[in-house]
Amino acid sequence: MKKAVLPKPLRGIIPPIITPLLDSNTLDVKSLEKLLEHILSGGVHGVFILGTTGELSSLSYRLRHEFVEHTCELVAGRVPVLVGITDTALAESIQLAQTAEKCGAAAVVAAAPYYFSLSQAELIRYYQQLADQSPLPLFLYNMPSHTKISLEPKSVKILTQHPNIIGIKDSSGNGVNFQLLQYQLKDNPDFSLLVGPEELTAEVVLLGAHGGINGGANMFPKLYVDLYEAALARDLDRLLPLHQRVMQISTNLYTVGSSQASYLQGVKCALSLMGICQNVLAEPLQPLPEKEQTIVRQYLQELNVMLPTNAAV
Amino acid sequence: MKKAVLPKPLRGIIPPIITPLLDSNTLDVKSLEKLLEHILSGGVHGVFILGTTGELSSLSYRLRHEFVEHTCELVAGRVPVLVGITDTALAESIQLAQTAEKCGAAAVVAAAPYYFSLSQAELIRYYQQLADQSPLPLFLYNMPSHTKISLEPKSVKILTQHPNIIGIKDSSGNGVNFQLLQYQLKDNPDFSLLVGPEELTAEVVLLGAHGGINGGANMFPKLYVDLYEAALARDLDRLLPLHQRVMQISTNLYTVGSSQASYLQGVKCALSLMGICQNVLAEPLQPLPEKEQTIVRQYLQELNVMLPTNAAV
Amino acid sequence: MKKAVLPKPLRGIIPPIITPLLDSNTLDVKSLEKLLEHILSGGVHGVFILGTTGELSSLSYRLRHEFVEHTCELVAGRVPVLVGITDTALAESIQLAQTAEKCGAAAVVAAAPYYFSLSQAELIRYYQQLADQSPLPLFLYNMPSHTKISLEPKSVKILTQHPNIIGIKDSSGNGVNFQLLQYQLKDNPDFSLLVGPEELTAEVVLLGAHGGINGGANMFPKLYVDLYEAALARDLDRLLPLHQRVMQISTNLYTVGSSQASYLQGVKCALSLMGICQNVLAEPLQPLPEKEQTIVRQYLQELNVMLPTNAAV
Amino acid sequence: MKKAVLPKPLRGIIPPIITPLLDSNTLDVKSLEKLLEHILSGGVHGVFILGTTGELSSLSYRLRHEFVEHTCELVAGRVPVLVGITDTALAESIQLAQTAEKCGAAAVVAAAPYYFSLSQAELIRYYQQLADQSPLPLFLYNMPSHTKISLEPKSVKILTQHPNIIGIKDSSGNGVNFQLLQYQLKDNPDFSLLVGPEELTAEVVLLGAHGGINGGANMFPKLYVDLYEAALARDLDRLLPLHQRVMQISTNLYTVGSSQASYLQGVKCALSLMGICQNVLAEPLQPLPEKEQTIVRQYLQELNVMLPTNAAV
Repeated sequence: MKKAVLPKPLRGIIPPIITPLLDSNTLDVKSLEKLLEHILSGGVHGVFILGTTGELSSLSYRLRHEFVEHTCELVAGRVPVLVGITDTALAESIQLAQTAEKCGAAAVVAAAPYYFSLSQAELIRYYQQLADQSPLPLFLYNMPSHTKISLEPKSVKILTQHPNIIGIKDSSGNGVNFQLLQYQLKDNPDFSLLVGPEELTAEVVLLGAHGGINGGANMFPKLYVDLYEAALARDLDRLLPLHQRVMQISTNLYTVGSSQASYLQGVKCALSLMGICQNVLAEPLQPLPEKEQTIVRQYLQELNVMLPTNAAV
Repeated sequence: MKKAVLPKPLRGIIPPIITPLLDSNTLDVKSLEKLLEHILSGGVHGVFILGTTGELSSLSYRLRHEFVEHTCELVAGRVPVLVGITDTALAESIQLAQTAEKCGAAAVVAAAPYYFSLSQAELIRYYQQLADQSPLPLFLYNMPSHTKISLEPKSVKILTQHPNIIGIKDSSGNGVNFQLLQYQLKDNPDFSLLVGPEELTAEVVLLGAHGGINGGANMFPKLYVDLYEAALARDLDRLLPLHQRVMQISTNLYTVGSSQASYLQGVKCALSLMGICQNVLAEPLQPLPEKEQTIVRQYLQELNVMLPTNAAV
Repeated sequence: MKKAVLPKPLRGIIPPIITPLLDSNTLDVKSLEKLLEHILSGGVHGVFILGTTGELSSLSYRLRHEFVEHTCELVAGRVPVLVGITDTALAESIQLAQTAEKCGAAAVVAAAPYYFSLSQAELIRYYQQLADQSPLPLFLYNMPSHTKISLEPKSVKILTQHPNIIGIKDSSGNGVNFQLLQYQLKDNPDFSLLVGPEELTAEVVLLGAHGGINGGANMFPKLYVDLYEAALARDLDRLLPLHQRVMQISTNLYTVGSSQASYLQGVKCALSLMGICQNVLAEPLQPLPEKEQTIVRQYLQELNVMLPTNAAV
Repeated sequence: MKKAVLPKPLRGIIPPIITPLLDSNTLDVKSLEKLLEHILSGGVHGVFILGTTGELSSLSYRLRHEFVEHTCELVAGRVPVLVGITDTALAESIQLAQTAEKCGAAAVVAAAPYYFSLSQAELIRYYQQLADQSPLPLFLYNMPSHTKISLEPKSVKILTQHPNIIGIKDSSGNGVNFQLLQYQLKDNPDFSLLVGPEELTAEVVLLGAHGGINGGANMFPKLYVDLYEAALARDLDRLLPLHQRVMQISTNLYTVGSSQASYLQGVKCALSLMGICQNVLAEPLQPLPEKEQTIVRQYLQELNVMLPTNAAV
């Protein structure tokens, strides 16, 4: 078991990888290997599994544990592995954290429990319990579009005081809250502030955030790494065309389907067209219909033409 | 293994029982036995486990399977057992349905998956898949306050055509949708239409619905059975004082806590004060604070005085 | 100026009338007269203007004041006139209440202000201010689907203590809250509890509510009056077929359009086909497209056949 | 009547000014003059009246028209005046636009109608109607927190084709939608893209947006003008400390009250403490309680110390 050291704070591009499947309940290990090599070749700074892009909630527990084992083995300590342990049952989250620790993952990531509605006080208490019991350091994961509760900046401030809570992935898309978060973290330089939506990576890194957990990096890892580096260097001349390309991907690939999961459908379809995995989503989600797959194929062809070097993608 | 015959349609009062716990991850089997005897002595027409009142989503899978086994064994075929298999992962729902079937449960009950947002078409497809694969007949469970999606009357109409879908528990509290549902089920006399919120049982049974899956029946089973029978008999003189008592319970017991789970906290606290179970909720929910437990005790004393016979409660 | 006496509590069927228009900003007085005679001939117990069915918020102030004047003159004291004064600007609400008083209306009706989000405490304060300054007694109007705030039962309880607040129209469709409201009003027999959605009139009047402010009574006033009387008499054999007819109207007429205003479009289209008014809605709403008007015509023909006597409708 | 030329696109900081009141229904013209001189001395690029910060919906129509007249007269063509005409009644919006035109305002601004729920298609149609009938060019105003409907990027794209629609103020705080908007406006260089929340002005101007309609500029106009200019110049060393100050204001001044209108309460309280206007809000909003006014006073004192020169603030 090889384990990567986790930098403090964790910086850069950490792709939230999709879960390659043969069917709803069977992992596709070969494709997982291909995907991991693809993204690692792009220079990414970590790998995040079992997030929303990984269809966390749709996977059986057996599959989730297997997925952790295979990923850690395949990554083999080259970059830190972050494992999503989001669940409505605390005991299941802890068990998954234990597997992650055993396999050599670097940290765990948890969104709010998403069946019962909690107050901010209840949510804080929940995270404290989870952090107390987790054998690995914990990243908060703010995902109100799916959990239906927002982790308020004031709550995050309280949670930063817990020694086992080391960062946050904010996927809310709420720019105001992100800036409020960043402002109040100004005296916590080791606490990692990472953004979910890739449309925001350029601007938040320019203003001081640490990086992005961006789904597009499943397909185009180097593009997002370049974007991150240009933003870090405050090189706006280099940054703006890269940001334009990210916006083009978002505008074209993530809205082909009419389902609310069109982003996920687009990513998985594109990866299958690129020969990296099967176009299989876990129930209750479905892959894009064939007609819309054709549209994705067209966009990919257009994008490829525009990409700096074909090899690196 | 004794198994009760499931009437077509299922009628009457089917308490959605709480899950008696020693701690977040340990079932309290002794209390489960006490609770089951308590409610069966009230004349209820079935038992529903692992619903929202049963804190379904907070329980580990091991515990859920155990709970099914113990309940079926303890009920021993005296009334039909309905098992909640609500989950975000289809494979886990099916596995629980298989355990339910093996143990002699009569049917399963499933709310919508509650992480990814689904359209009505996706939801219909999901339920069809679930019904295809479930070894037991399936009740739909409309619970938008927790799943954040409403099962529209038009979708229910389509799902009634599936031979393995035999009824619905509507916990939306949306009176208009309930009446629309009932109107369009007028030609499906075997499809069971049951209401969740006990505040509505009187009125919907008066207008023809089949009964209620009412949480208050954990504490006062006979009261709800009497209410159901008075409504069925259209005996408004008998019905109205019983309905008043139900409203008194709802008004006083379910709003003591300030949490959004105050209903659940109130029921579990009351049952613990009645000597039936421990006042333990699974994480992330917490029991009522001590000061509020005193308020519940007072209300119970007031209510007891008003209850027709102490013995039957 | 003739003014009807307002019973305490106000009981029965009070149609929330549509606003007959020649165009978005011109009242159709002739049609208003036809409509009023039509509904009064059905035996209704009052008239409510400038509610949601009256497209209150889409009308200019000049038109609202004109509408109050014409309605009061045409009704001429035969039944009480209730005037909707819902607005985001308190001063405009008061001015409209003054016009209503001057013209002989019996009471005013106000939903919550609907731009800024208010807490329950702020909402209570607002209603107290409005009731203090209104020259006519005030009905509360709970309309969360449009105002995006629900008037909680506990807030209503506080407001019942104001001498100038005399009733509530609850259009939430939330059956549980309606029952909680009714339970806590049990010691206020003079406070009028009226339901908005006609799908609920049968059940809530059976359990003791005072009546309905039901949009379908624009078209079929006698049907809703008959329904109310059967429910009041607890005559379920008479009630159920009338309730079925109400559900048939709701199921068929209010969902022809795909817009969220399909109820309003359906009512106005039906009234125009019945020769009572033009099929004109105020901006931003639009009438049903022609193809859907044909569907409404078909339903009306079906319904007419089933209606007890053509004359009374 | 002096009228400023409206640049294409409009750029810079355009404060959405508060409405100075003597009471809920009486304009405070003296304070209006003080406020306008205060903000114009800070170098702002325009003035926006009757936005959300201006409590648009709470003001009577008479007052709104008066306010337009006085503002235009006092500004006297020094900068463009933008007039909010947001309303639920199209006829009232048009009338206000006519007054604005007559008085020499440069443009009008309208959020979505906020009582009836509209589809995107209905909203597009509404804006087209409004733009057709408005005598002044129209800015779209996306304000979903208050109107409860979001103007989708795809809808904006369609509306940019209307010759009388010249820009958008996006106050959604949704960073992803803002970037999507900007990306699809890349071929419309004359269409003005302005951001509402001041927390986002730095980052969106860095990436190419045209400026901000920022409430804090009521108090500190020069700070926001400096921030805008630093962002425009891509001078991050100058920009970041200014952005920090904006975040400090947001963090401290806008959350003193517990009401959802705490931002508005904070701004008006601060302005009253600075001697610029009375601390009077229009019903249904209330000023901050006295205890919280003290907190605002303290923050202002702290902020003043940090501000570059007292004079310019």
